[in-house]
Formats: sequence, structure tokens, C-alpha cells
Amino acid sequence: MIDTKRFQKDFRAIAQFGALDNGGVTRLALSKADHEARNYLIKQMQQADLDVHIDPYGNIRGRRNGSDSQLPAVMVGSHLDTVPQGGHYDGIIGVLAALELVRHLNDEHITTKHPIEIIDFCCEESSRFGVATLGSKGLTGQLNCARMKELCDRDGISFYQALLQSGCSPDVENGGYLTPGDLKAFFELHIEQGPVLEHHQEHLGIVEAIAAPSRFRLTINGRSDHSGTTPMTMRQDALVAAAQLVLGTENIARQSSEQSVATIGEIHTQPNVMNVIPGSVTLGVDIRDIDGDRKQQMVAAFQNLVDTVESQSGCRIHTERLCDDAPVQLDGMLQQQLIDLAQAHQWRWRKMPSGAGHDAMHMARLAPTALIFIPSHNGISHNVAESSSLEDIMRGVTLLSEAVQQSAQE
Amino acid sequence: MIDTKRFQKDFRAIAQFGALDNGGVTRLALSKADHEARNYLIKQMQQADLDVHIDPYGNIRGRRNGSDSQLPAVMVGSHLDTVPQGGHYDGIIGVLAALELVRHLNDEHITTKHPIEIIDFCCEESSRFGVATLGSKGLTGQLNCARMKELCDRDGISFYQALLQSGCSPDVENGGYLTPGDLKAFFELHIEQGPVLEHHQEHLGIVEAIAAPSRFRLTINGRSDHSGTTPMTMRQDALVAAAQLVLGTENIARQSSEQSVATIGEIHTQPNVMNVIPGSVTLGVDIRDIDGDRKQQMVAAFQNLVDTVESQSGCRIHTERLCDDAPVQLDGMLQQQLIDLAQAHQWRWRKMPSGAGHDAMHMARLAPTALIFIPSHNGISHNVAESSSLEDIMRGVTLLSEAVQQSAQE
Repeated sequence: MIDTKRFQKDFRAIAQFGALDNGGVTRLALSKADHEARNYLIKQMQQADLDVHIDPYGNIRGRRNGSDSQLPAVMVGSHLDTVPQGGHYDGIIGVLAALELVRHLNDEHITTKHPIEIIDFCCEESSRFGVATLGSKGLTGQLNCARMKELCDRDGISFYQALLQSGCSPDVENGGYLTPGDLKAFFELHIEQGPVLEHHQEHLGIVEAIAAPSRFRLTINGRSDHSGTTPMTMRQDALVAAAQLVLGTENIARQSSEQSVATIGEIHTQPNVMNVIPGSVTLGVDIRDIDGDRKQQMVAAFQNLVDTVESQSGCRIHTERLCDDAPVQLDGMLQQQLIDLAQAHQWRWRKMPSGAGHDAMHMARLAPTALIFIPSHNGISHNVAESSSLEDIMRGVTLLSEAVQQSAQE
Repeated sequence: MIDTKRFQKDFRAIAQFGALDNGGVTRLALSKADHEARNYLIKQMQQADLDVHIDPYGNIRGRRNGSDSQLPAVMVGSHLDTVPQGGHYDGIIGVLAALELVRHLNDEHITTKHPIEIIDFCCEESSRFGVATLGSKGLTGQLNCARMKELCDRDGISFYQALLQSGCSPDVENGGYLTPGDLKAFFELHIEQGPVLEHHQEHLGIVEAIAAPSRFRLTINGRSDHSGTTPMTMRQDALVAAAQLVLGTENIARQSSEQSVATIGEIHTQPNVMNVIPGSVTLGVDIRDIDGDRKQQMVAAFQNLVDTVESQSGCRIHTERLCDDAPVQLDGMLQQQLIDLAQAHQWRWRKMPSGAGHDAMHMARLAPTALIFIPSHNGISHNVAESSSLEDIMRGVTLLSEAVQQSAQE
């Protein structure tokens, strides 16, 4: 049996590390609080008879042998680190679910055919080193020593140094990462970080694909003039041009598909005083879709929009492309397996995209990969206010456990 | 004759006080640089045989007697103080023009019927004490000691204290100001601070009315959600609502009249990061017109716009009204007099509004008042980049001189 009380005990223990007075938690990757949480996890993993080691990228990995130890393992896990003022669910639920499913197998004296490996990915959040999912990037061969030395926190400590200080051995160049064939499958359980499941009163989200953002920084140059003395027809108001871009970008996503999103979350205006027409505005633009072609159509429409606003407003607009990653499609067979299991429980589920990035998107390069969402209440994550009900969590843990066990037995 | 070289000499001298390396000037009211400029002016006024005194509000006033000293004086002037990083024309041209016209009368041995009084208004700019046109507010009976003690600069020095430190006597409660009948007329020459005259290649603007702003601070409260995981239909994006308000406000002014303006110059967004939907936005809104009824129609349309955006966006919008002053109509007879004089020179002129506030708007409470604009090049004022051609300036000085002389002779 999945043991809810045991799960809750660990959840409460982890929540203490980096806990804030306001109810949230700050547990930056490889910080003192993160090490406390990691050490707690290692102890629990050892008590569950796992063979524990920390890999060169700081990931904590615990292996449970199968009846044929030569077979590729089924890996399952998520992350314990948080953003500043973060919540208690994002990442943590997925790590504790992996631990619980191993304990469950132990309790039931079940030996799977394939080994099972549980993982706490290091540095999933970008808050400390500016780049997200460092542990899974490393594990999938996308990080070398030079890059690990480049990525520094605000105190100038590199990811490489932080790993050394944590007792890791990040020096394994050309090694220490996994390649296709090394794993049978990868599973991750995570809270949705969005409002969709709660809105539809559904229990579980079966993720079809993970969206990747195309991001742009626009600089709109108009002319700062006196707000009282400059007739409307003689203005080059950079904020008016920016407003056209905000509404046009919103419209592009609304017309694209239900799974398309586009957001202008960042705006800086100069001189930004009440009696001067804005002379320049910069905008941060984030366009996402799980369908690569559809995203490129949105990007093309966005670039047309910029050209139109530029020619009509009299402002000059400079566009800088910050990133343009491809969405990751997840494994269809594993999705069907999860749906079948959820159906058997009569749980309400939905296939859905993940708008946010996860370690699973890198793991999908190596092996068939599944990502399961449980509902976020308030639609909030990365935030003190994030929450999820115990019933929702335990449904997720059960589904994960059943799916991993099935995968490891085949 | 108006003496261009003499005018230029004074212009260059004043420009030194508070001069910056970048070509601009910082001469905050009653600062060391302002006192240097004021002392230079006082010396020139005394050399022009004027009876000089500083009134309780810090205004420098110099009187030239008329043939009947019992008659009300014709007053003429502007201000020497500047904003930080200000330009060399705004205000200064009007003070030096007043000085030059007196010297011209002296040169020509002309005695006018009415006395002529020239004035350098104290604290025209709001940069030091947060409120503009303090000298003319005081002179027209709109400032008492209590208020003068309330208005403080960043160092906590009040306007009252600054006046005391400058050797003024601001303690004359219930006195020291003028009342209707004390002046025959008031004239001010100023650069346009806008692009209209330059655009139309006109020499002179005859101001019909001075617009007053209605100002609002809007706080738009939506909901901060993850930009990747929140479908477009489940958002409460405060920046999208703000963009609708920016475009709607622009539209209201464009549809109102050629002399109506509305500007959103200030925007602050929270949390203002690329991957979070903006949860709250504040906007600073400035609506102006020289026609009071038309301005109130714009304000009403703006309030309807806010209600519409609120109901359609799902965001809550709080509106704070910061000011709602009435426009000031200037004297029609004086406008006609200025037009006739400009026509006689075959100068190109236009009747126009003043979108910016000036000391003339307070003086219009006391006496028939005229405001003359000369072209600003680049349409810019309050700024290092402001400029005006010598020919334009001297046309303005000549027109002012002829109009004041005519008014003082009648």
C-alpha cells in the first residue's frame, strides 16, 4: 500500500528546510537549506535499501535492483530546490512520490524485472545560476565543464564550484551522463502550475508535450515630448506603439489554438513621468506552444505585427530574439498506459500540454518519457500561495507507482 | 531700437549660472546658481534705472514710472529658474525680453503713461518644491504662510525657509499680493515647448487659452500567473487591460478636437518579469484641453472607458483623481492687438492653445493677460536639447516690446 502518513511525514520534514515565516520556502539549489533537504532525502533513500550516489551534475540517484540488473532502469523523480519565496509542492511531490513507490515495492516484497532508479535533479530552478534544469541537462550530455564553470550565481560562485563544495566530482569530462538505451523509461509527477485541472475539476493531467518558449526583447524608440504641448497628430508615443503590440500579441495567441499562449510580462518605459510622452519602451515577449509549426506561425505573425506597428506608429522597433527552442513531444504509449490506469480507478483525467519547462523535457531525449500533473489550487506555483490537496497528491502518487511498476515489469 | 547684441550678452551671462558640461543647465529655484542669475538680473535692472525690489514670494520686480504713477502698471516677465538638466530658453527669454524692452524705452527717451513693471517669477518650475508657479500663485493671493511652510524640497527645506535664507520677507500674511485693478495688463513671452509653430513654419503663436490638466492614477489589479501554463481564456492580465486603456485614451483625445490631448506617460508593472502574467499595473494619465466643457467630456469618456475595460477584462481598476483644474481663457483684445502688430511686420502667426502651464495663467485672474510663443526647434523644452533661433527670439522681443509700449500708452 501507498502510505499516506509516511508520505506526509517526509513532506513536512522537507518543508522545514528553508521555511519562511510567511509560509513559503526559499531553498535555492545547493544552498544550506537545499543540502539539509538533500541529506534528509539521502537518509530516507538509504533506509529504503537503495544504492545511493550523487552523480557529477549533483543529481541524487538511488537504485533498486531488478531481477535482471543488466536491463536498462526505469527512472523516476523530480527536484527539491525552489525559487526564492517558493512553494512546498513544485518538484518536491515528484521526488517524494518516487521514494514512496520504492518503499511500497519493498513493503510488498516485489522484485521488478528492470531496475528502478529514483532521482532528485539538481538545480531545476534557474533562480541561482540563471539557467533552469541544470541537473537533467548534465545527465543528458548537454553540459560540459567549461559551461558549468561559466554559470555563476550573484556571489560569483559557479555551478562547478558549488558542486565541488558540495562534495560532488564535476570533473568527469566526456562521461558521467546517460545516452539513449541507458534507460527504459522516465516518469515525472509534478503539480500543474496552472488553472486548467482545477477549472475542469479533473484529477490528473497526462502531458502530451512540453512547450518551449520563443522569447523576444523589443525596443521601441519614439520621441519624448511635452504631454501638454504636442498635438496628438505630431506624436511618436512609444507606449501607444507598445500597447498595440500587447493587444496584437494577445490576439495572435487567442487565434492560434487553445494550447497556444503569448505573454508580454515585462515593460520598461522612459522617461516614465506623467507629463512626458514616452520616448522609449522595452518589452519582454514570451510565445509558447507544444506544436513547433504552430509556434513558428505565431512567431511569424508576431514579426508581421511588429513591422505593421513600426510602419504605422512612426516609432523604430528593434527586435532581439532571446531564445527559440523546439517543443518536446512525450511518448504516446506511456500516455495511453497512464490513461488506462487512471480509467481503471475512474479518475477524471485530461491530456494537456505543459506550458512550463521540466526535467522531463531533457529526459525525453534518452528514453520514452511521461509527465503526470496533479491539480494546483489557485493555479499558482513558484509561489508561497501554491497548494494541492492531499487526495489529489495521493492519486498522483498511486498512478505514478502503478505505471513505474508496470513499466519495470515488462 | 531693440539691441540684439545686448540681449545676447545677457543671454550668455545667464546661461553660465548652473551650466552643465553637456550643454544644459540645472538652476533650481533659489539655489546658488539661481541666486547668481537673480543677482545678475538685479544688477542689470538697476543699471536700467528700474526701482527694484523682491516681493514676499521671492519675485524680483523692477518698476519704471509712467507719466501718471497712480495708474495701474503694465507688468511683463517670466522666470529664470530651470528643471534639472534643463534648457537655456524656457522662461529666460521672457525675462530678458522684458529687460530689453525697458532699455529700449530708455534709449528712445520714451515715457509711457502707465508705469511698466518687469518681473522674474520665483519658483516657476515644480522641480524643487513639487509645485509649479509658486511666485505667481503668491503674487495673485493664492499662497499663505502655512502653505509656504508645508512645501518642502528633498532636503526638508520649505519654500518659506528658502525665501528667508534668500533675504526675502515671506511673513506678510494677508498682504504683499496684488488684487484685480492693481495691473493694467500682464504680458509674457515664452518658447512654445511644442512642435506646432516649427511644423507650420510660423513665427509667432498668440495664445488663446492655457490648458489645465485633469490627472488620474489608475491601479489595475489582475492576477499574476505562469505565462506558460495559463491558457489565454483563463487570464486576468493587468497589462492587457492597461494596453486597452492606453489606446482608448489616445482615441478619446484624437476624436475630441485638434486642441485636445491625452497622454499616459507613466506605467509601473508588477512583477514585471518575462514569464509571469502581469498581476498589477499603475498608470499615470494626463488629459488637457483649453475648453473646460470639452475637457470634462473627455474625462467622462475616459471614465466610461475605465468602466468598460474593468467589466471586460475581469481586472479591478481603482481610479484616483489627482487634479482637475479649469483651463484659463486669455484676453481677446490683447490677442487682437498682438495679431495686428504681427500683421504689420508681415510675420506668420497662429492663434493656439498653451498645453503647458505658465505664470500667465495666474496673472489672468488679476488683469487682461497675453502670452506670446516663439517657435521651439525640435519641439523640445525642459530639456538640454531645447533651442530657438535668434531671429525667432528677436521677433518675439520686438512684438512684446511694441505691445507693452502700446498698452502702457493707452
